[in-house]
Amino acid sequence: MMEPERYLDEHQPTYVEELRAFLSIPSISALPEYAGDVRRAGEWVAERLARAGAEHVQLMETGGHPVVYGDWLHAPGRPTVLIYGHFDTQPADPLEQWDHPPFAPHIDGDRIYARGATDNKGNMLVPILATEALLATRQALPLNVKFLFEGQEEIGSPQLSAFIQAHRELLDCDLVINADIGQHSETQPALSVGLRGICGLQLDMRGPNRDVHSGGSGGAIQNPLHAMARLLSSMRNTEGKIMVQGFYADVRPLSDEERDTIAAVPYDEQEYMAGLGIAEFYGEPGYTTRERTWARPTLEVNGLWGGFIGEGTKTVIPSEAHAKITCRLVPDQDPAQIMEAIRQHVARHTPPGVTIAVSSADEGSRAYLVPADHPGLRIAGEVLSALYGREPYLERTGGSVPIMSFFLEHLGAYAVNFGFGLPDENVHSPNEFYRLSSFRRGQGAFLVLLERLAEEKL
Amino acid sequence: MMEPERYLDEHQPTYVEELRAFLSIPSISALPEYAGDVRRAGEWVAERLARAGAEHVQLMETGGHPVVYGDWLHAPGRPTVLIYGHFDTQPADPLEQWDHPPFAPHIDGDRIYARGATDNKGNMLVPILATEALLATRQALPLNVKFLFEGQEEIGSPQLSAFIQAHRELLDCDLVINADIGQHSETQPALSVGLRGICGLQLDMRGPNRDVHSGGSGGAIQNPLHAMARLLSSMRNTEGKIMVQGFYADVRPLSDEERDTIAAVPYDEQEYMAGLGIAEFYGEPGYTTRERTWARPTLEVNGLWGGFIGEGTKTVIPSEAHAKITCRLVPDQDPAQIMEAIRQHVARHTPPGVTIAVSSADEGSRAYLVPADHPGLRIAGEVLSALYGREPYLERTGGSVPIMSFFLEHLGAYAVNFGFGLPDENVHSPNEFYRLSSFRRGQGAFLVLLERLAEEKL
Repeated sequence: MMEPERYLDEHQPTYVEELRAFLSIPSISALPEYAGDVRRAGEWVAERLARAGAEHVQLMETGGHPVVYGDWLHAPGRPTVLIYGHFDTQPADPLEQWDHPPFAPHIDGDRIYARGATDNKGNMLVPILATEALLATRQALPLNVKFLFEGQEEIGSPQLSAFIQAHRELLDCDLVINADIGQHSETQPALSVGLRGICGLQLDMRGPNRDVHSGGSGGAIQNPLHAMARLLSSMRNTEGKIMVQGFYADVRPLSDEERDTIAAVPYDEQEYMAGLGIAEFYGEPGYTTRERTWARPTLEVNGLWGGFIGEGTKTVIPSEAHAKITCRLVPDQDPAQIMEAIRQHVARHTPPGVTIAVSSADEGSRAYLVPADHPGLRIAGEVLSALYGREPYLERTGGSVPIMSFFLEHLGAYAVNFGFGLPDENVHSPNEFYRLSSFRRGQGAFLVLLERLAEEKL
Repeated sequence: MMEPERYLDEHQPTYVEELRAFLSIPSISALPEYAGDVRRAGEWVAERLARAGAEHVQLMETGGHPVVYGDWLHAPGRPTVLIYGHFDTQPADPLEQWDHPPFAPHIDGDRIYARGATDNKGNMLVPILATEALLATRQALPLNVKFLFEGQEEIGSPQLSAFIQAHRELLDCDLVINADIGQHSETQPALSVGLRGICGLQLDMRGPNRDVHSGGSGGAIQNPLHAMARLLSSMRNTEGKIMVQGFYADVRPLSDEERDTIAAVPYDEQEYMAGLGIAEFYGEPGYTTRERTWARPTLEVNGLWGGFIGEGTKTVIPSEAHAKITCRLVPDQDPAQIMEAIRQHVARHTPPGVTIAVSSADEGSRAYLVPADHPGLRIAGEVLSALYGREPYLERTGGSVPIMSFFLEHLGAYAVNFGFGLPDENVHSPNEFYRLSSFRRGQGAFLVLLERLAEEKL
């Protein structure tokens, strides 16, 4: 495997500059004013993928942010894998907490700082570059490869389920390789076998038909901010257990074996708390911190606002109060049922004197758990063991990659999670970064993974 | 009294244009970026006051927004009154709910629409114009008059207490006439005998040291938005009664006579609800709506924010949550004691896993209640009875004019509330307006009031 490795070495300075250019595009999928930048990032990916040697490269419409497809299908009799990643990013606020502008990538030693550096632009570029190295040095790939990169992962991939369903034949594959994932540490590999699902709702509460004087009306009418605070408080008890009726009804209980597997992954709670600057954990009684974030469902308010939020004082009872809520789901919760349970809770617990509207931006996604005996999982484990000299931990992730569920549902293909982010890289936070050493290591790992998968019946 | 009345009639078109110019200055005291405009409004008032014939007119520094002073003191042996009003305004947001820009005054029939039209620029200009009419036609006033107009009423007059204390001799008077007040209706006069006091606090809550991923950490750490919702919910019970320990301790109980006086003022609850677009009242059990807004204390959240509040979804557990709270106070609550009680409540009820800072922008003010037998109150009542052909209602106001308490405390002078705003004029709300007929009627009423007060021992 000398040739492609040397090719990667020689091209690494160029690849870093290309990553920098990619990261300069503010492809924030949640903010409509950046929609043009999301598309521009997609065009950048398409151009880069074609230059790597992929065929049939195209920017495809979804009804929302576009996706990029490409393939190389000249290995008859060999398996077909579909490599997945995303080129959209989270918003960058709070901007004032960034040491450098989020879309002006800044390199400091081994680290490149930018919104999207590790989630997911750095990691999604890796398999494109590995493919280029193979095609440039050997003029062929050892198996059939399809690429699907999307631009709406950070908003829950609202159009991707329909898109995959509509393009079943184009996307048909034996295995998905998901690059939107990470390793345990710089020296310890990991394979993520589970992701939580997600669903989200927005609550829009309304009291008086305009902001009114808190002197003139204070004491006589319901204040939407108090009403919203009470409604949100009704959703969890003081210990953090979710009080929405039926919320836990379909949760598959954790087996002793599962709890042992989770407990086998080392974890420094003190370090984790120090990193977040918190003095104590807080969560559902009866579970370890790891179990709470990996294998138990949540209900979290992500945003809350209403009334006068500027500097100084404005003595109003506001007309409106708003909250954004997302839930993380575990097997076998159904996002539609959870959203319905919350709607019913809201209907029962909204205080008097206000009206409320509940809306959801998308249908959400189920949690995802790869069977322990899946062959793709075994091979990826062997590749990582050889590369790091250690067996990978079998980890879960508290986050959600809805498209994993869509691939399983519509293509019947499980995914192997094969990415090189690391846990301290400030995903979704200010000063997000990616390690250039991970960038290079990932490229080499993909060479081996594709080679090994080519030998298997998937 | 023909001459000054005719003078006012002749000058009315000019006065309306002057009001329009005054309203064009965006003198928003709560927003630091408008500080220059507050000063500009003060300069406009000083110029206008001098042109009316007042002497010793000066813009005086307070350490914050300035005040305007002027006087006319050539009536030896006659009482001295101090006329008060304010030239600052509330912020204008939500801007999109205004039919016309808030600082581009728009006249429609009898109404002039602008932020500050009725509160208080229209009403504070009235006594200046009445003074001009007297001086222009008779070259003298019937009694000694001082003027004090301030630029920080809408933020609770934080520097005014110290200013009045420091200028006791300059401001010494027998009676204050407050122009920052209104009448019951176009045909029914009213005298406001009571104002609620006010105090305010901001709560700044902090969880993790940055916004974190709700997938990675959700379930394991406290979410400041949930913690803030729970803390705020602990401050009032489901019926709206305030649960802060000691909050009601010093409240002077309402006497049967007081309740009768309040009940004597007619009041259409259905119309009030329709005007606000609400289906029901909500408030402390055991009191009428009027008692709740006039004579019972409140605790209201005026603003609440944290996390992602843009369009779309951002799956964070935010680092911070913030709330602004104000309380309306009644006799004999002490704002300092109430703020301390809330601080202690916050200390006892802040959920685990977050830290909280409590701050207050100013010391607040006590409630204010004019004795029923005060001579200034009697004379103002006689003037209004003659003008409207009806006895004025004795009303209270749910709002707060902190400076009333300062005048009483530092100058020993009660205030007669003599202004011509009307209850439907959207005070502190979008589409605030003032009636040009009230503007003219007020000018005539001030002529008579000054004449009648000159004859009394105050």
